Amino acid sequence: MSTEALARQAAERLARLAEERVDHRFKGLPPDADGLTVAELAAQRRNLFRDGDGFTSPVLALSAERLEHNLALMETYASRHGLAFAPHGKTSMAPQLFRRQIEHGAWGITLAVPHQVRVARAFGVRRVFLANELVDASALRWIAGELAADPEFRLVAYVDSVRGVELMDAALRGTARPVDVVVELGAGDGARTGVRTEAEAAAVAKAVAAAPGLRLVGVAGYEGEVPRADPERVRSYLRRLVALAAGLDGSGRFADAEEIVVSAGGSAWFDAVADVFAEIPELSRPVLKLLRSGAYVSHDDGHYHRLTPFARVPEEGALEPAFRLWAQVVSRPTAEQAFANAGKRDAAYDLDLPVAQVVRRDGVERPAAGITVTGLSDQHAWLHTDPEADVEVGDWVGLGLSHPCTSFDKWQLIPVAEADGTVVDYIRTFF
Amino acid sequence: MSTEALARQAAERLARLAEERVDHRFKGLPPDADGLTVAELAAQRRNLFRDGDGFTSPVLALSAERLEHNLALMETYASRHGLAFAPHGKTSMAPQLFRRQIEHGAWGITLAVPHQVRVARAFGVRRVFLANELVDASALRWIAGELAADPEFRLVAYVDSVRGVELMDAALRGTARPVDVVVELGAGDGARTGVRTEAEAAAVAKAVAAAPGLRLVGVAGYEGEVPRADPERVRSYLRRLVALAAGLDGSGRFADAEEIVVSAGGSAWFDAVADVFAEIPELSRPVLKLLRSGAYVSHDDGHYHRLTPFARVPEEGALEPAFRLWAQVVSRPTAEQAFANAGKRDAAYDLDLPVAQVVRRDGVERPAAGITVTGLSDQHAWLHTDPEADVEVGDWVGLGLSHPCTSFDKWQLIPVAEADGTVVDYIRTFF
Repeated sequence: MSTEALARQAAERLARLAEERVDHRFKGLPPDADGLTVAELAAQRRNLFRDGDGFTSPVLALSAERLEHNLALMETYASRHGLAFAPHGKTSMAPQLFRRQIEHGAWGITLAVPHQVRVARAFGVRRVFLANELVDASALRWIAGELAADPEFRLVAYVDSVRGVELMDAALRGTARPVDVVVELGAGDGARTGVRTEAEAAAVAKAVAAAPGLRLVGVAGYEGEVPRADPERVRSYLRRLVALAAGLDGSGRFADAEEIVVSAGGSAWFDAVADVFAEIPELSRPVLKLLRSGAYVSHDDGHYHRLTPFARVPEEGALEPAFRLWAQVVSRPTAEQAFANAGKRDAAYDLDLPVAQVVRRDGVERPAAGITVTGLSDQHAWLHTDPEADVEVGDWVGLGLSHPCTSFDKWQLIPVAEADGTVVDYIRTFF
Repeated sequence: MSTEALARQAAERLARLAEERVDHRFKGLPPDADGLTVAELAAQRRNLFRDGDGFTSPVLALSAERLEHNLALMETYASRHGLAFAPHGKTSMAPQLFRRQIEHGAWGITLAVPHQVRVARAFGVRRVFLANELVDASALRWIAGELAADPEFRLVAYVDSVRGVELMDAALRGTARPVDVVVELGAGDGARTGVRTEAEAAAVAKAVAAAPGLRLVGVAGYEGEVPRADPERVRSYLRRLVALAAGLDGSGRFADAEEIVVSAGGSAWFDAVADVFAEIPELSRPVLKLLRSGAYVSHDDGHYHRLTPFARVPEEGALEPAFRLWAQVVSRPTAEQAFANAGKRDAAYDLDLPVAQVVRRDGVERPAAGITVTGLSDQHAWLHTDPEADVEVGDWVGLGLSHPCTSFDKWQLIPVAEADGTVVDYIRTFF
């Protein structure tokens, strides 16, 4: 297929998401919308809260305004700091959001595993940064096929071992275009993937040079795994990463690259990445400084609310939590207990429990005073209620969530609502 | 639509699952199967492990033999003890498994939230036990519509508060058939939903009698939430539940029912349920003793492996863990560390971490000696390796999982493999 035909196909697939039928696959949506297309339902501008509009609990909603705010803020941030941006797509796995991120200036999308690359490719993403090692022969052959079929497709993957390089090369032998790789530098003793020493990095780079199926184009790492992370330790690791790039460049290891990729940046330390990457010295090729933060798109009311770099640089703006999970109180067995109908199937629970923010009854919303989520069963939230808590069976409770990655992955079609509850769009995810 | 037409539609929908196209929606499947129907892929009898068959990692597999063993064992168990069986469908949310459970003698399917009822109804499940309170007007109106459209559809839901009864009745006012309800008895102080006292149960029953939209047909509870559960406390709670049924029956509260439902039974105490329900006295109507255990269908290698009642009654058989998650080692940065490409997106992590069981390299499988899963990132498993561990980049690690409910919900199309790795079917889930 020609490049134009591939682009057309991708646009069609994205458009076709709006033609999907609303049915039993998607929870929280109005039962009487069954059979409508997503576009038809969106055009009805139903309200999350209006009687008769029919949204059922539990239902997760994204704020239209906050989503747009976050997309624009990180575009500005990356641009101001001279960073290319490949937001981590594992967070949302939503091609519609990938598209909006790219429209907001993103260089491409970061992903973690081959299945995620398939999703991105199905919706026409042209540049993928695979922030993980990949040695699966079947997945590598599929990627080689994609590279052969679309000259504009670019994929950059991690390598951190000579054996990994050999397995990749064996799977890719004879393919049309080499796969671009970057050496991953581990974030310290006991940290996650990545070579531990510069000597290991040099050995991996040497192995890549001997592998016709691969081309070395840079270095990468994840400062979010720096042990006992603090600003100084994180900066120290990032400087080591930059020095590794310069060292490999000095050894001629990027001779085949058009540009040198230097990549880091989760959602907790992108200020440090901006600072340290601003000091990258001149190398033999232009440098692509690639930031990968992904959680910003929805942000959250927990983990990233606490860790956001914007708390250290408030003059650069602030992300806004865009998720709210609505659950209904179904039981109020004692004065201290209430139970809502959202559980582990609906809410992130890996880093923090949800937080009760507001209560709605008869169209009136007020703060969830005296209500604390103390646990989640598969399908229930356990609420502890203080004496001042005013909560009854039938009330809807709006919950803030912690960790976007484990919130998105529990919902396959997510209403996007304006501040008054009007649902203007639906975001499809693929996990 | 006539009953026959509804049944035909349900059968067609189940058959249509096999006509779905394999594509980017489903992870772990061979990339070159893209565009095949599920039936076509199943007919190819690909092998999970054979080079060239193309399954990519991570991939979750269900054992064909163990699944069938578990289905048959619980059919036998329920039948031997005179229990009707409504396995909890929230576990798998797989209409194909619902069908097999019903073919194995199940009375119906237990569910927790209205969305799950929609899935079951879309695939023709006729009897639903909703083991939860439901006060959502929009969902109740949908259920009323289903009851009106299909005279063979039966739904029984929990009630545990007068206010809940009033909200249900208000939503159901004027509908053709009442919704059947059972009073839920809470499992003790600080336990989950359910009335705390017999006096509250009587008040709720009285409210139901005054609600034309509802009909009281029994009592139910969940012994899995008994505080500091042990065999004596669990039996004591179950006897209280039986006494509540007898008490309400004595007060004439089941006068409108054709049979009296007494239901309990998760996956940790069904031996106690069988014992206590064997002693249910004669009541004014025939008694439907309804067991709801759901985790048995896949069983597990963790939580339910420890808690299974079959450990107390080994003469009645034993469930077999049917899940194995295959992940590939992508990094081996130190002698003590390895990382596989499955994480929170792929494996249950709410009750226990996965357990490394076997390692495969070059077609040879051996025990995963000296390998311990110490943590999960979103897309990585952290493995600690002892000196004796023989594990390299590229190896596949077979992981045992704990908690079926949070394993099924991470996979939308799950290969069912025979012992030699031949994939004979694919199970579709709807979460």
